[in-house]
Amino acid sequence: MAFRLRVLSVLVLMIAAVRPAAALDIALSSFTLGNGMQVVVIPDHRAPVVTHMVWYKVGAADEPKGKAGIAHFLEHLMFKGTSNHPVGEFSQLVRANGGDENAFTTQDYTAYFQRIAKERLALVMELEADRMQNLVLTDENVLPELKVVQEERRERIENDPSGLLAEQLDAALYTAHPYGKPVIGWMTEVQQLTRQDALDFYAAHYEPGNAILVVAGDVTPDEVRLLADRYYGVLKNKRPLAERIRTVEPDAVAERRVTMRDARVSTPIWQRKYLTPAARALPQRDELAMSILAEALGGGAQSRLYRTLTIDKRLAAYAGAWFSDDQLDSGDFGVYAAPNPGVEPATLEKEVDVILADLRDKGITQDDLDTIRNRMIAESTYMLDSQETLARMFGVALTTGQKIDDVLNWERDIAAVTVDDVSRAAKRVLDLRASVTGVLLPEAGG
Amino acid sequence: MAFRLRVLSVLVLMIAAVRPAAALDIALSSFTLGNGMQVVVIPDHRAPVVTHMVWYKVGAADEPKGKAGIAHFLEHLMFKGTSNHPVGEFSQLVRANGGDENAFTTQDYTAYFQRIAKERLALVMELEADRMQNLVLTDENVLPELKVVQEERRERIENDPSGLLAEQLDAALYTAHPYGKPVIGWMTEVQQLTRQDALDFYAAHYEPGNAILVVAGDVTPDEVRLLADRYYGVLKNKRPLAERIRTVEPDAVAERRVTMRDARVSTPIWQRKYLTPAARALPQRDELAMSILAEALGGGAQSRLYRTLTIDKRLAAYAGAWFSDDQLDSGDFGVYAAPNPGVEPATLEKEVDVILADLRDKGITQDDLDTIRNRMIAESTYMLDSQETLARMFGVALTTGQKIDDVLNWERDIAAVTVDDVSRAAKRVLDLRASVTGVLLPEAGG
Repeated sequence: MAFRLRVLSVLVLMIAAVRPAAALDIALSSFTLGNGMQVVVIPDHRAPVVTHMVWYKVGAADEPKGKAGIAHFLEHLMFKGTSNHPVGEFSQLVRANGGDENAFTTQDYTAYFQRIAKERLALVMELEADRMQNLVLTDENVLPELKVVQEERRERIENDPSGLLAEQLDAALYTAHPYGKPVIGWMTEVQQLTRQDALDFYAAHYEPGNAILVVAGDVTPDEVRLLADRYYGVLKNKRPLAERIRTVEPDAVAERRVTMRDARVSTPIWQRKYLTPAARALPQRDELAMSILAEALGGGAQSRLYRTLTIDKRLAAYAGAWFSDDQLDSGDFGVYAAPNPGVEPATLEKEVDVILADLRDKGITQDDLDTIRNRMIAESTYMLDSQETLARMFGVALTTGQKIDDVLNWERDIAAVTVDDVSRAAKRVLDLRASVTGVLLPEAGG
Repeated sequence: MAFRLRVLSVLVLMIAAVRPAAALDIALSSFTLGNGMQVVVIPDHRAPVVTHMVWYKVGAADEPKGKAGIAHFLEHLMFKGTSNHPVGEFSQLVRANGGDENAFTTQDYTAYFQRIAKERLALVMELEADRMQNLVLTDENVLPELKVVQEERRERIENDPSGLLAEQLDAALYTAHPYGKPVIGWMTEVQQLTRQDALDFYAAHYEPGNAILVVAGDVTPDEVRLLADRYYGVLKNKRPLAERIRTVEPDAVAERRVTMRDARVSTPIWQRKYLTPAARALPQRDELAMSILAEALGGGAQSRLYRTLTIDKRLAAYAGAWFSDDQLDSGDFGVYAAPNPGVEPATLEKEVDVILADLRDKGITQDDLDTIRNRMIAESTYMLDSQETLARMFGVALTTGQKIDDVLNWERDIAAVTVDDVSRAAKRVLDLRASVTGVLLPEAGG
């Protein structure tokens, strides 16, 4: 699953910014099995295929003390076979039946999915339900995979200065909440993970009552209910679910800054992240105001950051902003820019701060709002053409404390956002005390 | 125990910098009871009193996920009575017998001690041994005490900008290690602590096999052994000790900075902390070279920081440095200065960096070394005149991975430190990647 996390972070980020239009004709149905497993069915009859996803409401932020990386490591180990299907058979069967599969781990959820011909839905359900309870781990399988995970970390973090910086930024931004810990885990803890750690985490969190089934594709709710009952409904929850220990991040009191020098860096990068309330803690309308704020600030070539820094003043090679609210306990609002040769990052930062202050003081115009909103709606319609994206969106929403209605009412809610909402969002978000600023530089004198 | 932590942090810091001279005539003896409880006896016949200390090898860094502050909270609750002595009786008996008592919690250890007439040693041993195993906690006692701890946090952290900044600095300096969490705990977690949390922590860590008894005073080793066997030796370890989960802090890769503005601040404060290896990880000689480095840099009016910034350039109201190696897993080396009115902290920082660079490049002279060493030895001899300090020193050493011999050989080891050792120490310590710089400022425009 080497590169899934990165793929996800990008995808979810887009998803977070663009929810589906209510106009989208989804005859969605949702129900719960006797064992508490939630089921969401999204009919999509454009092609005779289905996307089958199982989402566990557990992620890196739920890891026990000292076991950083165990959620992601277990995701890898879920492919190591069960008492019914030896190692490798799962993936072989999926491929042999013309399907493909995927898995990913975040701070809040771990998800497994397959895309396959509709006639094979029962097959993947049987396989997924099987590994929900019958995983078999041997040191012969676990120990080599632990090396794989360490190598994955080396590739994505140690060997990538921007990856290292991102990790340091989160570590500095969160003082107490586990989001300050990287999903892939600190190398010093990952190296210590054991087969037993994985089995303990599996036993504590992989239960039908802690899972959500999302099926999108050429099926009816009744067909899905029948199969879901047969394969998942028969599973018993073996124990009470482990408590999710999520510290409430204390109120931010200080501006933080991380400066990293690395010989591998040629172009400096400047960025800042602001902590924002969790999506579930605000009305969706306020969340969407933050998305619109991010778009106004740094969404594309017409955005204020890009226009001013890249086109008008030629200070930056590129500049942008993002808003991500795909987490259970908090979101983050980011701003970034890459100084042109000869431009001091500090100079660039001053210019960014001027743009931010202007936006905070003056807000945006109705024209800005309308333009951005129309673009977001158009993009969402385009994105939702993908069955996988569609299915993934509901999985993300339901594992991060949001409701199906939030997704379905997206266009209604974004239509309700006013310029005043955006101004309030700017004042709420752009508070340096809740921020970390990161600067990545070439080695001194380098 | 409201202000113990602060008192301790100061004391230990001095202790860390000045260990006792081997010349000091200590007929120290050390032995272990059948249940694994270590005993250290330090005869001191100058007065008919004894200092009795029990040190538990557990502190805030050993707290379970989400239970920040439970180690310190339990320290408070240890005074709430046992099945043999109702709440209050412990302290009453100590006072009624002319003694006084104390307790403190750090990241690595929790200690309880009494100073009392030699004839009463058996009494305090009986009481301390009793509460090691028979603590009784009721919600009537626990809930009000939880309010006390929260108030203690308000007084010492929330109401003290420098306390808040110190907390933020540690949170930024440690990326993965629990030392980034304050001993008193994050308020959002402290508020959630329960009676059961305290009982669980007590059961997991308060065992004779996890404790060290230190007795200093007008007693002989044989007398102490007799009493220790009678009161502590009879106790059984009820369960295997809970594992101490101490993440190895990943290699530092980025310079960090924390800027805090607070309306309550009148004079800005600038400071920087560097992470250093744990005392147990280096030969004492290298540790002492770091102590000498701190003295050369910021120990008193003759130090480079004070002389240059305060006397010569009149940039700072005060300036100094410290080195603290009283922790099990890492030490820290600190530099601080308070800019005079009208002096920008950034200006002051530039000057500090010049002084640091000079020290790193040129090191110190033999004269510097001799002067500093003589002063440290003189101070240590003076400090060790205190029976409590003497006893405390061995407790700290033994609970932070150091050896009795490290303490006893202090003067021999400091005598061996060369100017080259100090230069190597400067190059090892003064690495910005392993540092956090903190600036405390008045509210903007204030």
